[in-house]
Amino acid sequence: MPSPATDRRLVILTEGHSGPITAKTANSVLRYQPEQVLALLDSTKAGKTAQEVMDVGGQTPVVASLDDVPDANTLMIGIAPAGGQIPQAWRAVILAAISRGMDVVSGLHQFLSDDAQFSDAAARSGSKLVDVRKNDEQDVAAFQGFREDCLRIHTVGQDCCVGKMLVAIELTRAMQQAGHDCKFVATGQTGILIEGDGSPIDCVVSDFISGAVEKQILENENHDILFVEGQGSLSHPRYSGVTLGLLHGCQPQGLILCYELGRTTVHGMGHVPLKPLAELCELYESMANLMGPSQVIGIAMNSRAATAEQAEAERQRVSEELGLPVCDVLRHGPEDLIDAVCQLKPQLALG
Amino acid sequence: MPSPATDRRLVILTEGHSGPITAKTANSVLRYQPEQVLALLDSTKAGKTAQEVMDVGGQTPVVASLDDVPDANTLMIGIAPAGGQIPQAWRAVILAAISRGMDVVSGLHQFLSDDAQFSDAAARSGSKLVDVRKNDEQDVAAFQGFREDCLRIHTVGQDCCVGKMLVAIELTRAMQQAGHDCKFVATGQTGILIEGDGSPIDCVVSDFISGAVEKQILENENHDILFVEGQGSLSHPRYSGVTLGLLHGCQPQGLILCYELGRTTVHGMGHVPLKPLAELCELYESMANLMGPSQVIGIAMNSRAATAEQAEAERQRVSEELGLPVCDVLRHGPEDLIDAVCQLKPQLALG
Repeated sequence: MPSPATDRRLVILTEGHSGPITAKTANSVLRYQPEQVLALLDSTKAGKTAQEVMDVGGQTPVVASLDDVPDANTLMIGIAPAGGQIPQAWRAVILAAISRGMDVVSGLHQFLSDDAQFSDAAARSGSKLVDVRKNDEQDVAAFQGFREDCLRIHTVGQDCCVGKMLVAIELTRAMQQAGHDCKFVATGQTGILIEGDGSPIDCVVSDFISGAVEKQILENENHDILFVEGQGSLSHPRYSGVTLGLLHGCQPQGLILCYELGRTTVHGMGHVPLKPLAELCELYESMANLMGPSQVIGIAMNSRAATAEQAEAERQRVSEELGLPVCDVLRHGPEDLIDAVCQLKPQLALG
Repeated sequence: MPSPATDRRLVILTEGHSGPITAKTANSVLRYQPEQVLALLDSTKAGKTAQEVMDVGGQTPVVASLDDVPDANTLMIGIAPAGGQIPQAWRAVILAAISRGMDVVSGLHQFLSDDAQFSDAAARSGSKLVDVRKNDEQDVAAFQGFREDCLRIHTVGQDCCVGKMLVAIELTRAMQQAGHDCKFVATGQTGILIEGDGSPIDCVVSDFISGAVEKQILENENHDILFVEGQGSLSHPRYSGVTLGLLHGCQPQGLILCYELGRTTVHGMGHVPLKPLAELCELYESMANLMGPSQVIGIAMNSRAATAEQAEAERQRVSEELGLPVCDVLRHGPEDLIDAVCQLKPQLALG
């Protein structure tokens, strides 16, 4: 697991993949650790700003070559594609960074440190290869119960790439600022890069998913509230197993269902229609309640691609349909969801 | 993946763990490949027969030492405990087998071939170390659909260790004998040892569970009927993620729910009550139907610990409660479940 690494001066590699969803690791690091990012590396977009190509990151430049950023000490792989393999075309850039003595940080399934060419080069240059997803989890869940006063809120999804991590981080930060004792529990490579700890549960051997999550909760249940990052969806043809193992491992009392306005098919699988939100609320509650009392307390809408008017209309429609608070935490602020969290644990409203 | 290895002359190591459930790998190999087994190795039960300590295996002897079975050429690890670690006390026996040049076959999560002491010894003696669970699955599911005429029947469970593999094998063999074109699709280490192929899905990296299963189906969908071995349970606090990833990966049209008569708590977790069968039927159908039409077509009861009278009363009670055929495939034969399979695909009844 990487340390928070506050001395990192990053170039983020997004070559040919720049964009808010295609390069979601880059997007989130730009949002939550902008002070670390010197540049994006994408020769197809060189000369633009991060804001222009990623919708976040302000004036951070997009450059064509490592030569343009001599002060950088770390190359970060900025994408997390399905399957998590290293694009063949990126190998030369990674090797160039290693030969300069730069560290390389990756959240891919294909580990840099298992690649003989990369690890030989790193041994010569003294570079560190950091594979955020690499883990050795081998503990099954004990299911002995968590501290009763620790409220666990879990962001779950209609799909992947809808903002489950972002919502968990935004709620954590907003409630911390209001004086609550909260922690964000990261369960994916980007969340771990931002928080500095967590467990990459989509890369854990499948018998140990729930055990790995349980361990994260036990380590952090001294806090009053945990916001546990969700993964995938119970209805995702690829990742539903990860989603359920995570749901059962953290036994959340409260669920926040996340979705993107206007999306109709599974991300990257245009032949698979998404399930309706009402059906998903029922499904998540049924599955969560197998392990302990749990309810959906609110809906987090990602309205990135919508106008203010469209977002407002959708917010009202969904709220009326489901009888739940609905908001886009970036557009509307997280207050409605924070109220829902506080209602679940009345004493917190005072604190 | 091991070959069927018909020249194997096995000693199965069950030291201190002999018993039909504690040594479930040994139990199943004794049941389905008795011709390969020369002896069980358990010094605490030496002098008895396999039948006496395992409820299966007839006159196969239980011995105290490898010296008692000079003809054996392979040591097989006969247990599959939660977590899958090698009992410390077994290391000496495994090393002794390796030093004799015997191959060692293991289905544990802790790989023999990753252990420096074992692999060094094997390199010296020429022994083969076969880790059945070792895999390199890195493909996500494509979910492009299966051959329409391939009927997929999936054995699912109220719990682990209730007989999901056994039911799938018994149904496959009975229907093969009746002339149907069937195959057993193994998804766990013991099933793979018996069938000679399959995927150890509880040891696959969790993002790739459904993809690994899908690959098994695509490789075998030329058959008319596949019986896909289930794992764990949707309500199992440790393994539900594996169960759901498997369920969604094979998209079964028919489900057979397996349980053990008299069991009230999760195997090995006495503090966790089991969920009622009726609730589980609904849950499995809800989750399976996310990917395609699917229904529970019958109940497989494991009545190992019951009298004939108790088993008959339970069979009637459950059948009336759920409106489904119920049988113990070993005690009553598999006919009722075969009828249910044939009803799901009427044209098969003729063939």
